[in-house]
Amino acid sequence: MTKDKIKLRVRYQETDQMGVVYHANYFVWFEVGRAEFFRKLNMPYSEFEKNSLYLPVIKAYCEYKAPARYDDEITVITRMDELQEVRLTFHYHLFRERELLAKGTTEHAFVNQQGRPVVLRKQTPFLWRRLHETFNSSGG
Amino acid sequence: MTKDKIKLRVRYQETDQMGVVYHANYFVWFEVGRAEFFRKLNMPYSEFEKNSLYLPVIKAYCEYKAPARYDDEITVITRMDELQEVRLTFHYHLFRERELLAKGTTEHAFVNQQGRPVVLRKQTPFLWRRLHETFNSSGG
Amino acid sequence: MTKDKIKLRVRYQETDQMGVVYHANYFVWFEVGRAEFFRKLNMPYSEFEKNSLYLPVIKAYCEYKAPARYDDEITVITRMDELQEVRLTFHYHLFRERELLAKGTTEHAFVNQQGRPVVLRKQTPFLWRRLHETFNSSGG
Amino acid sequence: MTKDKIKLRVRYQETDQMGVVYHANYFVWFEVGRAEFFRKLNMPYSEFEKNSLYLPVIKAYCEYKAPARYDDEITVITRMDELQEVRLTFHYHLFRERELLAKGTTEHAFVNQQGRPVVLRKQTPFLWRRLHETFNSSGG
Repeated sequence: MTKDKIKLRVRYQETDQMGVVYHANYFVWFEVGRAEFFRKLNMPYSEFEKNSLYLPVIKAYCEYKAPARYDDEITVITRMDELQEVRLTFHYHLFRERELLAKGTTEHAFVNQQGRPVVLRKQTPFLWRRLHETFNSSGG
Repeated sequence: MTKDKIKLRVRYQETDQMGVVYHANYFVWFEVGRAEFFRKLNMPYSEFEKNSLYLPVIKAYCEYKAPARYDDEITVITRMDELQEVRLTFHYHLFRERELLAKGTTEHAFVNQQGRPVVLRKQTPFLWRRLHETFNSSGG
Repeated sequence: MTKDKIKLRVRYQETDQMGVVYHANYFVWFEVGRAEFFRKLNMPYSEFEKNSLYLPVIKAYCEYKAPARYDDEITVITRMDELQEVRLTFHYHLFRERELLAKGTTEHAFVNQQGRPVVLRKQTPFLWRRLHETFNSSGG
Repeated sequence: MTKDKIKLRVRYQETDQMGVVYHANYFVWFEVGRAEFFRKLNMPYSEFEKNSLYLPVIKAYCEYKAPARYDDEITVITRMDELQEVRLTFHYHLFRERELLAKGTTEHAFVNQQGRPVVLRKQTPFLWRRLHETFNSSGG
């Protein structure tokens, strides 16, 4: 399984005066999906940083199909898409019931606390193996 | 001139525990740049909505080169990139002094208050002409 | 029951460079607690606005006891505290397990879509009765 | 002078579906006012943290008089209100031209990087003196 699913409910704070969710907030929901993805693998992201491993976003993209609205229940589907020695890509799909609201991508570098790139296989071999297995087990 | 420049200062609220600006906030800065772009043309976006014209984001993209930090002074450069009958594209560059921090794009549809697509030339001819002139005057 | 309980997980976006949750976000969590409070009464706040009833915040207060951190599971306890003809007060307590992180208050006016104050008993009698019963049933 | 004044323009992101600024954002503007207050004293808050001095918010209060709207130009007036050895209080007033939109307060502790309270006079004597002079010079 390289896929994870989580539900969240739209907060009033996330809306704007167009009466829909402000577009930048979709990236926050992607982050929520990503956090759950790692948690399900028993590798919560909070543990990464304790080991001086950070995954800053280096590219982010979103395509908006239909507006999310206040109080909607949103399903975030997160899929690991590419795993390289120094970088990782996720894809996301946001649904309200069966309606696709948006899809997007984030690309992440592996860096240490000083912001220097690290080779995951060397810096955190356990995590590398775990992600690698996960990625392969699904036929990628 | 299809280009506009505005400065803003990074707020504490915009940082995250990585000690840098949270990535989704760059899209908020793009929005600030866009608002100033329209204001300079004497067509503040707030006027659009009074005329039942909305410009929701339909695609958003950002590439992160170097992290912005608390209290940095950021320059947002906004450029209109494509003007079509039903859609508009902007490009953005974010600088801290001469250092490029990020660049990105947003694509916008023209819709009415009900969220239905409108042909700008018909719905708001004045604005269409104004954007069109602006776009051409610069050799696009 | 004039009390409701909901859990939420701290998002990365909610942290700041102090390594803890940015203080203003506690008010967003209060809003989440309030929304669940109304939902449990079978009166989701989203329905209010469809009936041209709005509950803007007119006073907000928070006292911070201990910092919430990324990925913490936070329990929000929301209690209706005062119900008057033109206004409503809520109290909130935020916990991480048994540790009190913060407590606060929001006071809300009842207004219509134009922002004019309304007397709830007249404007939305059903809601007034429902809140009133709820409030009394608990010995307030 | 224990008072500072700064202007900011309401961002689209700061609005909600009520068509006005979401209430929690006023606390972000207070933070912007506070940052400018320190900057004007030649003690930018960013320098504090480099010296392991942090000023987390321990109490926050806001009273809302009239809604701020998209694109409004807001004046934030920040006043230091109480200076104690372990704590500091600020008052804020938000105006749109001459109309008072909101007023509020934040109370801050002085803590070190570990979150432990510090006595400002001992931890950062220079800053203590500077704030003290500032406070007295105005009949505070």
